Order: sequence, then C-alpha cells, then structure tokens
Amino acid sequence: MTTSIDLGVTADLHVHLREGQMMELITPTVREGGISIAYVMPNLVPPITTIDRVVSYKQQLQALAPETTFLMTFYLSTALTPELIHEAAQKRAIQGVKCYPAGVTTNSAAGVDPNDFSLFYPIFKAMEEEDLVLNLHGEKPSTDKDGEEIHVLNAEESFLPALAKLHADFPNLRIVLEHCTTKAAIEAIDKINNENKGEIKVAASITAHHLSLTVDSWAGNPINFCKPVAKLPSDKKALVAAATSGKPYFFFGSDSAPHPLHAKSKHIGVCAGVFSQSLAVPYLAEVFDKANALDKLKGFVTDFGKDFYKIDESQLVNKDHCILVKREQTVPDVISLDGLKVAPFKAGEKLEWSIEWRKV
Amino acid sequence: MTTSIDLGVTADLHVHLREGQMMELITPTVREGGISIAYVMPNLVPPITTIDRVVSYKQQLQALAPETTFLMTFYLSTALTPELIHEAAQKRAIQGVKCYPAGVTTNSAAGVDPNDFSLFYPIFKAMEEEDLVLNLHGEKPSTDKDGEEIHVLNAEESFLPALAKLHADFPNLRIVLEHCTTKAAIEAIDKINNENKGEIKVAASITAHHLSLTVDSWAGNPINFCKPVAKLPSDKKALVAAATSGKPYFFFGSDSAPHPLHAKSKHIGVCAGVFSQSLAVPYLAEVFDKANALDKLKGFVTDFGKDFYKIDESQLVNKDHCILVKREQTVPDVISLDGLKVAPFKAGEKLEWSIEWRKV
Repeated sequence: MTTSIDLGVTADLHVHLREGQMMELITPTVREGGISIAYVMPNLVPPITTIDRVVSYKQQLQALAPETTFLMTFYLSTALTPELIHEAAQKRAIQGVKCYPAGVTTNSAAGVDPNDFSLFYPIFKAMEEEDLVLNLHGEKPSTDKDGEEIHVLNAEESFLPALAKLHADFPNLRIVLEHCTTKAAIEAIDKINNENKGEIKVAASITAHHLSLTVDSWAGNPINFCKPVAKLPSDKKALVAAATSGKPYFFFGSDSAPHPLHAKSKHIGVCAGVFSQSLAVPYLAEVFDKANALDKLKGFVTDFGKDFYKIDESQLVNKDHCILVKREQTVPDVISLDGLKVAPFKAGEKLEWSIEWRKV
Repeated sequence: MTTSIDLGVTADLHVHLREGQMMELITPTVREGGISIAYVMPNLVPPITTIDRVVSYKQQLQALAPETTFLMTFYLSTALTPELIHEAAQKRAIQGVKCYPAGVTTNSAAGVDPNDFSLFYPIFKAMEEEDLVLNLHGEKPSTDKDGEEIHVLNAEESFLPALAKLHADFPNLRIVLEHCTTKAAIEAIDKINNENKGEIKVAASITAHHLSLTVDSWAGNPINFCKPVAKLPSDKKALVAAATSGKPYFFFGSDSAPHPLHAKSKHIGVCAGVFSQSLAVPYLAEVFDKANALDKLKGFVTDFGKDFYKIDESQLVNKDHCILVKREQTVPDVISLDGLKVAPFKAGEKLEWSIEWRKV
C-alpha cells in the first residue's frame, strides 16, 4: 500500500488571496495546503490593472508567505492597453490576464461582455505576442429570454462556442478555461487538443471541490456554493476522469475563494466561493485515491500546470517538495484570525491524507 | 384597469403549520394571506398517523384561527392500516393521506420507498373505497449510480412513471402530484387528463414560489431553497402557463413551509422550505397579473381545488370572501413572535396587490 508520495514542487494555478485581514489569514495557508506555486487572481476592489499595484500586491503576499512562489495576473478591462500588456510582460510583472464576464461572480462587476470579446482583441494580440496566458471565467450571464435561456446550470456550456472562437481567432494565444465544471467543457477541451498538434494552446483548470460536489451538495449548503456551480453527477464523473487521465491539458487550479463565515451563513445573498486552500492537496488526494489514480496526482498538481505556464526554476523562491502522507486528519470547522472566521471545504469531515514538506 | 377582484372562498391545498410556538405564529397568517381553507400537512415529529392526534391538532389550529377552515391529513407509513383509513374517513377526520418518499424533505425520514409502493396497496385500496385523496411528494431520492443518476433537478421527472403506475393500478383513487416544478410534470398531468373522461382523478398543485423562482433564485439565497427545488426558466414558464390555463386539474397549494430564520441562515444544512403563507394570494396575484391572466386567478385559488377535494359548504367554518385589491405593500423582512423569526418569501420586496375580507 502507498503511504507517501513525493509530489515535487506543486502548483495551484488559480487562487484568491484577497486583501487586508483576509489576506493575512489566507496567504500562509497556500503552503499549509501543500502548494508551492500560486497563480493569484486579480479581482480585488478595485481590480488590479496596473504594474504598480500588481508589484505591490505581490510584495505583500511574499512578506506573508516567504516560501511560496506567487505568479500574478491583470484583470481584463478597458483600463488595460496593448502598451501596458507589453510593458508588464517584459518586466515579468504578470504571467497572464484574467477575464471575468460581467456580473457572474465575486467582484466581477468590472468584467467584460462574453457575447462580444472584439473590444479586447488588441489586448489579446499583445498577449499572444508576449506569450502571456488568458484565463477565462467561462460563463455567460443568466437570461430567461425565450429560446436562449441561460441559467447557472448551462452558463458554462453556453460559453464554449466563445472559447472556440477565441482560439480560432488567436491560435497562438495560450488560453485556460478556468474551474471547468461540465462534461461538455471537458469534451470541448479534448476536441481542441485532439485537433491541434504540438504545444498545448488551450487547457482547463479543475478545482478540488468540483471533483467532489454536485448540485445536491450546494442545495441547502452555502459552504459549497460557488460560481460556476457544481453540476450533475455525470459532470463530476467527467471531471474526475479528466483530472486522473494524465492528459497534460487538465491541471489543478483550486479557485479557493474565502469569504467570512457571516457572508456564507445568510438567507439572502450568500457569497459565491469554496475555501479549499488550507487543505488543497489532501482534498485532491481523497479524490485520486478513490479513483485508484494516485499515480496521476503529480502530473495534475505539479507537472502539467507548470509546463503549460512555462514556469522555470529561476522563478521559484523555494524548491521544497510536497510529500503526500497517508495520515488521517479532521478538517477544522473554521480557521480564524482575531474575529475573522472562514469555514473550509468539508468542515468537520475526516480526510485520509496529509502533507509534509521535504526541504531541498 | 382592474382594481379589485372577488376571489370568493379561497383554498390553499398544501400548508405546513408546524407545532408549538411556530404554529402559534404561523396559523393566523393563513387568513392574513388571503386563504380561507387550508389543507394541513401531517409531517410533525412524530408524523400524524392516528385519529386522536389529527383531531387534537385540528383543535389547536382552530383555536388559533377560528375563521379558517382546516382540512386534515394522515402521513403515509406502516403505522396506517386499512381499518384505520376506513374509520378516519367515516368520522371525516381526514380528507386525504400524504406520501413522502423517505429522506427527500423536512421530516420525511418515516416516509416510503418510491421505487415500490406495493407495500401500501391495501391502504390505497381503502382510500379509493372511501374516496380519500392521495397527496404525493413526487421525488425520487438522489443516487449517483451509473446510468440511473438522480439529483435534485431530475428527482421529480424520475418520479413520474411511478405516478402513472399508481393511477393505472388505482384508476378511481384521486391523486395530487404536490408542488409540481417541471414542464415534464405538467405534461404528464395533461396527458393523463387528456386520456381520461369524466371526473378528474389526477391533479397537481402548484406553489406561489415555483411560479416565480428558478435555479438561479436559490443559488446563494437559502430563503428560496425548498424541495422540490425550483428548476429551469423553461420549467417556470410551463408552470405559469398551467396555473393560468384555466384547466381545473391545476390548483393552488402553497407548500408554505416556515423555518426559524436561524435554520435558513446557515452555511451547512439549511432547512428546505419557502414561507409564503402570510402573503399567499398577493404573491399569486403578481404572477397572474404579469401573465395578463388575473381573470384566471379565482379558478386556480378557489374553484378548482375545492371542486377536486369535493369540499362542501357544510365543512366551512367561515364563508367570507377574499377580495384582491390593487394596493402596493412591502413584504416585511421577518415576521416574529417573541424570539422566533421567520423570513417570508420576497422579504423586503414590493408587491402590487393586497387582500381584504368581505364579511358574508
């Protein structure tokens, strides 16, 4: 029986670390959860759209977690220009740009209209030239218009044609469909990669929680409510199959999204997001173990994301290895700092795996 | 422009009035919400399965609301016998029997296995003989078994074959598919009634909230979380079309299901149920008005249910008429009694219609 696995220098290609007290609480949990490299989302208030802010934000994060490697992003909006993209890329201030459709999730009010990306084509062209990554929150906004009804359950599938068009229009732009949640999305990513040869241009990140949840899980449990919402059992099975497939265009992005407990324990207006950072790798290990695919975990959580993002050794502030260890632990009900409390995914439940760090 | 409508002696054929302090708070709201006749669900703890308890429960309710007519039910379980059904019917202690599939909603642990009703066929035979009504909570329990996945979104549609079989096996048993939520259910009820001639044997009740909500409404808003969950925009449209159709086998049952505010404002384990009793008729009026179908409201909320249940004048404790009046009001954030608080459907929102009572 396997009792420990060396996962190497792990990467989580989609994290939310927030600001202020929440940032102080959450940032150290990246390493506690078994993750070495964190790709940091820019949806602060206001969103991050300048080099000064991204540099300053990274410095704050680094001070809180000196052993974690942070990779940074801009928030796609009309505040960006092609010139800024070139400058930010050449200074290595950012690794990519995150695109939020307006209004679909936390702090996305400044986002774009996913029915028409053409406004941002000059930005995408600059990104393609600089070999930056475009990170897509792939959902269309809800509408009950006859014949084109969009709701939380088909919002992702409805977005997939826009993804295909973007790839066709910018075949050399590296694109990640973030936190994909549907069988339809998995099939779309498979299709693109089956047709393409050579370097991977379109990939998808998959969270730990979407490998475990379905619509039943968040019905009545706001702790499990996030955007995109977890879908049907058949979707979850397709996600698990993709994550454990060994295909290099599916890799880990936790989309860990902390909110204060009081913002999750409301009868109206619950914030969307599952907080999974503090136990990211143990959550994944549960899923891979159950699927008899622990041998595929290192590819998913370490190799494939780093390869796609072309992260080189010189970028790493630390090269310790994450060691997965078969040792039971109980998820705490909350983690807290002074008065601030955050409920972690699977609060109060038992996990069979833990992590340790091996110094390098 | 219509500014007032005489709705006559209105009926809500599916209410939850609970026990203790909650019962004291909720029971008077039946009349406040514009309802004269209330068909009371039996899912107390323990469930109501004896004549003594149903009589005593009705007395308590009547004391709290002397002007409301209460019709009572038994909870279908192995505690019932054909002899008890005959006795309860002949004493007019009950109007029907409610069937809960085990484990799908509030206090349903004592319910039945919807994959096999045959255990209860002697009960159904006795009910058919006494012309009692069988009220079905039409959902199958969730499972992620390959090939037969059931989840909160297809749980009702998966139940429809069991409804058709029951009707085939007991063609003279009057059956109500309670709080139906899907286009598939509407079509199934239409199909049965198109094939039958003469007296209606299979009907469906429709709630006020399912005429207004979709899956987007309860994603992140536990106040709108109930079982069965609200489904897709296309389902909602089918429900509105059925309710405003004038077809006599679709009638009102609010499934108003109060829970203490603290049980709705949780991050884990939110209670299922929307509380709509205190403004039942104004909520309906909003929907019918928007559909330009106010002329169909009296059929839906007064005539069709009473006809199906064969409620005669002698059963009514009061014959006042509910008058719908075009007068704006704001839904309170909560209604309360001592420390107990309940958040009503559409808390804080404006409604365009109010009700008054005309003494008869």
